[in-house]
Amino acid sequence: MENKTNSGNFFEDFYVGQELKHSTPRTISSGDVSLFIGLLGSRFVLHSSKEFAKKIGFRDAPIDDILTFNMVFGKTVPDISLNSPANLGYAQCKFIEPVYVGDTIKTTSKVLGVKENSNKKTGIVWVNSIGKNQKNETVLDYIRWVMVNKRDEASSPPKISIPDLKDEVSLSNLIIPKKLNMSKYNFDESGSKYYWDDYKIGEKIDHIDGMTIEEADHMTATRLYQNTAKVHFNEHTEKEGRLGRRIVYGGHVISLVRMLSFNGLSNAFKILAINNGKHVSPSVAGNTIYAWSEILDKKELKDNKDLGVLRLKSVGVKDSPCNDFPLYKNDDKEYNDNIVLEIDYWVLIPKKK
Amino acid sequence: MENKTNSGNFFEDFYVGQELKHSTPRTISSGDVSLFIGLLGSRFVLHSSKEFAKKIGFRDAPIDDILTFNMVFGKTVPDISLNSPANLGYAQCKFIEPVYVGDTIKTTSKVLGVKENSNKKTGIVWVNSIGKNQKNETVLDYIRWVMVNKRDEASSPPKISIPDLKDEVSLSNLIIPKKLNMSKYNFDESGSKYYWDDYKIGEKIDHIDGMTIEEADHMTATRLYQNTAKVHFNEHTEKEGRLGRRIVYGGHVISLVRMLSFNGLSNAFKILAINNGKHVSPSVAGNTIYAWSEILDKKELKDNKDLGVLRLKSVGVKDSPCNDFPLYKNDDKEYNDNIVLEIDYWVLIPKKK
Amino acid sequence: MENKTNSGNFFEDFYVGQELKHSTPRTISSGDVSLFIGLLGSRFVLHSSKEFAKKIGFRDAPIDDILTFNMVFGKTVPDISLNSPANLGYAQCKFIEPVYVGDTIKTTSKVLGVKENSNKKTGIVWVNSIGKNQKNETVLDYIRWVMVNKRDEASSPPKISIPDLKDEVSLSNLIIPKKLNMSKYNFDESGSKYYWDDYKIGEKIDHIDGMTIEEADHMTATRLYQNTAKVHFNEHTEKEGRLGRRIVYGGHVISLVRMLSFNGLSNAFKILAINNGKHVSPSVAGNTIYAWSEILDKKELKDNKDLGVLRLKSVGVKDSPCNDFPLYKNDDKEYNDNIVLEIDYWVLIPKKK
Repeated sequence: MENKTNSGNFFEDFYVGQELKHSTPRTISSGDVSLFIGLLGSRFVLHSSKEFAKKIGFRDAPIDDILTFNMVFGKTVPDISLNSPANLGYAQCKFIEPVYVGDTIKTTSKVLGVKENSNKKTGIVWVNSIGKNQKNETVLDYIRWVMVNKRDEASSPPKISIPDLKDEVSLSNLIIPKKLNMSKYNFDESGSKYYWDDYKIGEKIDHIDGMTIEEADHMTATRLYQNTAKVHFNEHTEKEGRLGRRIVYGGHVISLVRMLSFNGLSNAFKILAINNGKHVSPSVAGNTIYAWSEILDKKELKDNKDLGVLRLKSVGVKDSPCNDFPLYKNDDKEYNDNIVLEIDYWVLIPKKK
Repeated sequence: MENKTNSGNFFEDFYVGQELKHSTPRTISSGDVSLFIGLLGSRFVLHSSKEFAKKIGFRDAPIDDILTFNMVFGKTVPDISLNSPANLGYAQCKFIEPVYVGDTIKTTSKVLGVKENSNKKTGIVWVNSIGKNQKNETVLDYIRWVMVNKRDEASSPPKISIPDLKDEVSLSNLIIPKKLNMSKYNFDESGSKYYWDDYKIGEKIDHIDGMTIEEADHMTATRLYQNTAKVHFNEHTEKEGRLGRRIVYGGHVISLVRMLSFNGLSNAFKILAINNGKHVSPSVAGNTIYAWSEILDKKELKDNKDLGVLRLKSVGVKDSPCNDFPLYKNDDKEYNDNIVLEIDYWVLIPKKK
Repeated sequence: MENKTNSGNFFEDFYVGQELKHSTPRTISSGDVSLFIGLLGSRFVLHSSKEFAKKIGFRDAPIDDILTFNMVFGKTVPDISLNSPANLGYAQCKFIEPVYVGDTIKTTSKVLGVKENSNKKTGIVWVNSIGKNQKNETVLDYIRWVMVNKRDEASSPPKISIPDLKDEVSLSNLIIPKKLNMSKYNFDESGSKYYWDDYKIGEKIDHIDGMTIEEADHMTATRLYQNTAKVHFNEHTEKEGRLGRRIVYGGHVISLVRMLSFNGLSNAFKILAINNGKHVSPSVAGNTIYAWSEILDKKELKDNKDLGVLRLKSVGVKDSPCNDFPLYKNDDKEYNDNIVLEIDYWVLIPKKK
């Protein structure tokens, strides 16, 4: 009898050009928004107050961009990374249409590249995943690459195909929400008086606060996204696993870093794109996550005098405050042991006219 | 002065024919649906996507049948099982009208039978509980029997009255949602290609995944249902109790088993009835719940060519994978120590025409 | 370069007459209501059933008054109590307009008084905080006083200014919801048959049940209110702190005591005012919270024959049942070590005509 359970795809199952339709589209609810706040403590006003959102030109409060990212990512797991020992990176991640409560998000992926690893036990798969709403508008479009176990070490390797990934989403590819009325942007409500103009390239910001992760918190977040990766949920097997315990979903760490960045970047109200991101080391329950950011670049926009973009590097750090901006151990760009995340992204922020 | 707190009914307080109106009707919200997903990771598309639900003929995404069960059950606890050392079983549980966000559910119970136990310390009470929506339509109708403490060992026993319980809900008593348009059922979205036709009587399915229970998770679920049974919430007393710690609400285990069954039974989109269910042994935080199912029976429907019903037995198992389908220790039908739940129920599933 | 992170105000930053506009107004969602129930298990029917609420004259189910309190309080923390070693008390807290799902609450505060402490390391700040909805109607108006660290011990003290606080909110200052139709109040649904008439001044009620606090629960509640006080979230620093671990937000304890009071005070459906409140000692995860109440006073209302008010003292107790109504150790009004909260408030309750 045919086995009806999904054990996930193995490296041999992927081929360049393959299209995957991920199951369980998801209608976003106000409960998701509350849980995202409850699990993180996020304070960006655009997602907290529909009055604020409407005043500046949105039809309602859009959901947090990282919530969109997690909702889309979660759906890809059963087909792409159920047999993955490691999520390697993200690139060219563009946030396009805002997502509102009531929207239903459906996700598909296309395989862009495959390459067997030299150990013959695993390979790398590059996929382009796209989330669309019920009007078939794209809300998120990103590439990730992931290590995937082979089903059989003896199987012959596929033709190597590595996609040409850009280091950044270029300025012209950033999607700026249309018809925003920044004259109505309330800086008392947003929590900071700082404009685009006030940030300098090279400036570093310690976000100060730390948030300790509980098992119930990271599991609830990850289940909310319907992400099924076993390592986050099953203590019975993970106590014999790599870390001797459950591993926190990397997207939860991204969420925490974005939330912490509010203190210093309150007006970075919209993430436009993630240029690249890397889970440097895993987190487990009991870790306290801190974060710091650096302004990598800043650009004016051709058609918007009252908005500018900042390119940020944000770094997630476990169990260590960030007043000395930890990242590398030494000049060889070897990461400090407590670095968990390095993420490079574009944000939208009000600009003085 | 009259004591104004509710200490719950004791065995002596119940009599056949007694009617109980349970307090705190509950308006179901989208927050309840999000929490149910967040606490379990459920992926059945009917409850996740309103677009999917509408396409096949529902007016919106109905809530998960097990969420309905838990919401109704929770309301009965303050009146029926506050002084109960054990919930003994369920029977003839029929899911009738679908429940939608915005519906307000009110619950009543009628006592069907009473029987003192030979130890004279406890008795068994049979009740028929019914949940109705604001239009007075029945959404759930079930019988459970429960052991209840006597207030006074010396009180004289009531006349024994044991209701005649059927082993199953007969095919003719299953309520099939009307006017479903199965031609619009999207198998990419549902997560499985398997129809009613693909399942065989006697087939066993290992649902593979395991979910570890945290105290915060099971307590949040149980509080969400406004279930007040002390044993789930009070570590201060339970550390001196039977298990030396808080006990997980049995309905949370049913929820977990239903959620896990998605992997292998993704198209079993609607529970029609629970024939019987038994909490074989208790679970506590730290346990990892696994599950397997067996196809007990399958039936065609007279008036629906594109739907069929499966009768399933699902088994919840703690801290042990289910690849060998554990249930009994031996031929005497003595359960293995790690079995926590055995539940026998009818599900609705698409059928090839 | 100017430091863009908010490290919070210090004692020297406050002056009498100062006005503070707190950031991140919050649109209340049905998800907040579900989480409040999920984290507490609250059963007051007015907040659980919109059908009940509408029958007695509300336009929808209003949110729990304590949820309103927490949402407003949370917003004040980044500006007032980020550098506070202790929250000292509340007074003259009036609940005015009911809050409904969809309302957006914005909070401001005005400094009423300042007084340096004799140790010159800290001072006391009195503030009047006001929460308003999107129609600019006041929903909550209260005074709290809080100890705040000085930035610099050597800085000279401000002129002492202590506001004249009243011990209670007078009967004439209580805001009774208009146009309630108590003939539609359903005592089966509310969970108790007791009217205003049934309570006697001096009567004490043991609320019986206990609820154990988990780290994930109190942090999720506190994050939901966007309260940023570090001591609740950061185990990495708090393990070196005063208690050697994270401290539970006092408002979560108020929530728990209100929830527990349902058993014995189910018909106290609306909190009108908090006369004063005191966090006697801190709680930590693992504590089990119990509660008892005393009827301090009862008053008829001039214009409402079918409603009355009770003045209650509720006491939160950790790790000890309340059958002997614990409060003081001795005649010197020294609190027992396990007392965590003493709160004095007015509630609205149905009265026989």
